[in-house]
Amino acid sequence: MTLPRPIAPHLPDGLDTPTLVIDLDVVEQNAQRLARAIAEGGLNLRPHVKTHKSIALTRIQLEHGASGITVGTLGEAEVMAAAGINDIFVAYPVWASSAKAPRLRALAERAGLTFAVGLDSREAAQQLARAMVGSHAHLRVVVEVDSNYGRTGTNAATAGELAKHAKDLGLEVVGAFTHGGHGYHDPEARDAAAADEIESLTVAAASLRAEGIEPQVLSAGSSPTATFSARPPVTEIRAGTYLIGDRQQVALGASPPDGVAIAVAATVVSDAALNQFVIDAGAKSLTKDAPPYIPGFGCIPEFQDAVIERVSDYHGQVHYDEGSTVPTLGQVVAVVPNHACPVIDLYDSFLATRSGQVVGRWTVDARGRSS
Amino acid sequence: MTLPRPIAPHLPDGLDTPTLVIDLDVVEQNAQRLARAIAEGGLNLRPHVKTHKSIALTRIQLEHGASGITVGTLGEAEVMAAAGINDIFVAYPVWASSAKAPRLRALAERAGLTFAVGLDSREAAQQLARAMVGSHAHLRVVVEVDSNYGRTGTNAATAGELAKHAKDLGLEVVGAFTHGGHGYHDPEARDAAAADEIESLTVAAASLRAEGIEPQVLSAGSSPTATFSARPPVTEIRAGTYLIGDRQQVALGASPPDGVAIAVAATVVSDAALNQFVIDAGAKSLTKDAPPYIPGFGCIPEFQDAVIERVSDYHGQVHYDEGSTVPTLGQVVAVVPNHACPVIDLYDSFLATRSGQVVGRWTVDARGRSS
Repeated sequence: MTLPRPIAPHLPDGLDTPTLVIDLDVVEQNAQRLARAIAEGGLNLRPHVKTHKSIALTRIQLEHGASGITVGTLGEAEVMAAAGINDIFVAYPVWASSAKAPRLRALAERAGLTFAVGLDSREAAQQLARAMVGSHAHLRVVVEVDSNYGRTGTNAATAGELAKHAKDLGLEVVGAFTHGGHGYHDPEARDAAAADEIESLTVAAASLRAEGIEPQVLSAGSSPTATFSARPPVTEIRAGTYLIGDRQQVALGASPPDGVAIAVAATVVSDAALNQFVIDAGAKSLTKDAPPYIPGFGCIPEFQDAVIERVSDYHGQVHYDEGSTVPTLGQVVAVVPNHACPVIDLYDSFLATRSGQVVGRWTVDARGRSS
Repeated sequence: MTLPRPIAPHLPDGLDTPTLVIDLDVVEQNAQRLARAIAEGGLNLRPHVKTHKSIALTRIQLEHGASGITVGTLGEAEVMAAAGINDIFVAYPVWASSAKAPRLRALAERAGLTFAVGLDSREAAQQLARAMVGSHAHLRVVVEVDSNYGRTGTNAATAGELAKHAKDLGLEVVGAFTHGGHGYHDPEARDAAAADEIESLTVAAASLRAEGIEPQVLSAGSSPTATFSARPPVTEIRAGTYLIGDRQQVALGASPPDGVAIAVAATVVSDAALNQFVIDAGAKSLTKDAPPYIPGFGCIPEFQDAVIERVSDYHGQVHYDEGSTVPTLGQVVAVVPNHACPVIDLYDSFLATRSGQVVGRWTVDARGRSS
C-alpha cells in the first residue's frame, strides 16, 4: 500500500543550511480547518503547543478560536504565561517535587491565568495538595484516564475515586482527559483510537458523577484522532501537530498532503558513495524519529524515490535506485521531517515564510523547556 | 551475550527533572586516559567537540594535551574560535554556498587561528576556492577518504588526484582524514573498522605522494576505534564521545562501565499501567537514538531489568518483569543515554558535578549550531 505523501512548502533562495522553515500560509489554513471542524461539533479546541513552542504561532491558534492552550511541562506553561496566554492546561501527571512545587504554585497563583494540571494517582494528588498548602489559590486538576494506549492515566471506571480523593485534599477537579496515542501506531488505527477516547471519557464522566463531581471538561485528543473524537460527551480536543503537519500526519491521513507547513532545508554535500547522496541534515536536524510505516528519517518530496536511510549527527545518507533523478552537489532540498514536535525543539528559531518568501525569523520560545 | 553495562554518575539531591548532569571527575579521567594512550603511540589527539559543544569541556581536553579540536559545522567552529581555541578542523565536506562562503572566509582569515576543512569532491574544492578569491589567507583542506563506511569520502586510491586538483585551485592540502563509523555497528566491529581506517589512510598517503603532496596529517577516528587506529601511518585521532561516555560506548567496550560521565535525571511520574512505570524523560530529553544491540532508549543502571521501551515527547515508558525491584512514584533515577552527542544537543546547559555535588551550571555553548 502506498501511503499519501507530503508536499513540501516552498523554500526561499540562498538559505544557510540546515535550517528550519515554517510556512505561515499553511499554518493559517491548518489553524482554520481544525478550528472550524471542532467548532461545528460544538466543542472547544485547546491546541497542544509543545509541537511548535512558539508564542507567535500560539497567538495564531488563539486568533482562530482556540479556547486556551495545552502544554506538556511547567516550563512551557511558564513561557506561555509570561507571554500573557491566560488559559493553560498541563496535560501531564505533574509530580510536585520540592523543585517543582514553587513553580507550580506560582502558576496557580498567577493573576488572570486559568491554570490546570493532570494527575493519575493518589500520590500525585497528595504531592500537588502539599505544594498548595497555605496558598490563597485553588489548583485545578484534570484526572487522566487511559484509553487503551497504556502510557499514563488511571482506569476510567475508577476515575471518580481518584477525583474524590483529590477533591478531599482541596484540589479543584474540573474533569477528565485522555490521549489515544495508539492512533499513531499505523494508518488504520485512528478510528479505533478515537472510539477508545470517547468510550473512556464516557466511563470516566459516569464515575466522576457517581462521586458527586460534575465534569466541566472531558478532553480528548491527538492530531490523528482529533476530528473523530469531536463528539459528545467529549467537550474539548487537544490536537497539536495539526497546525504544522509533518510526514507522519500525511501518511496517517490526518493532514492533507498540502497541509505540511514545515521543511528542513538541507544541502547536498557529498555524492562520493554509489547510489547515495549526503545532505547536511542529520540526527541533530531531523531527529531519529522513524515510524515503522514510513521508510527513512524524513522524506524529500522533490525526489520521491530517495530514502534518507541513515542519519548521523550532521549527515543524512540518502539512498536511491540506479537511474533515479537526484539532486546535484550543492543543491538545496526541502526535507519534510517525520515528526514535527521533536524536530522543532532542536531549533532556537525558524524562518517564517509565505509562498517561499521569508517574512521573519521567529523564536521557538519554549525550546528545551522539557522540565 | 550480555554486553557490559554502564554505571551512572551520582546524582545531586533535589533536582528539577528532567535535567542533564555531567560528572567532571569522570570527564577528567576520560580526558587523561585517552590522551595518554594516544600520546604513548606518538600521535596527536584532536577531540571532536560536537559531542559536548562546551567551551569549558573543550578546555579540559586541551589541558590534557589535545593538539587542537575537531568540529562538524562552521557554527561550532565560530563558537570555539570566539572562545580563543586556536586550532580547529571542520571534519566535514563543507559546501561553500553563498551563505557559508563569508563565514568560511572569516574563519580562514582569523588571526591566530589554524583552520582547516574537509572535502571529498572536485566540486566542493571549486566552491571552497571560489569563496577564498581575493583573500590574503590560504584555506587549509584535508581530503576525506572512505574506509568502507560508505558515508562520505572519496576513494583512497585516487585521493591524490583530488588533492592535486584542490592544490591547483590554490587550496593548501594538509593531508587526509577518514571515519570508520562502522565501528559502531556492533560490538565486534571495532577492530575491523580500525584496520579499515589505517588501510585507507595508508593508501591515501601513497596516492597524495604520487602527486607530489606530502601529507602532514593522516587523521582517523571515532571513539570505538580510537586506540586501535592509533599507530603509523596515522598521525592524529579525532575521538569525541570518549570524554563523556554513554551506554553505547560501554556496550561496544570502548568505555569502561565507570567511564560514563553523563546522566539524565528523571522522575517517576506514573505507575498506572501494569508492569510499567513512566519517567518524565522522553524523546525531547533522551532522543530516539537506539542502537540495535541495546534495548530501549537509554538505561537506568540502578534498575537493570527495566527497559525504556517507548518514548514520546515527555514520557519514557519503562517496562519491567513482574517481581522486579522498581522505583517508587516521585523517585528520581539516573538514566544513562544511549548516545551522548544528540542528547547533549537538546540542553542549553548542564549541571557540572563532582561525586554527586553540583559545582556549577555549564553552558552547551554551541547547542543547535548545526549549520
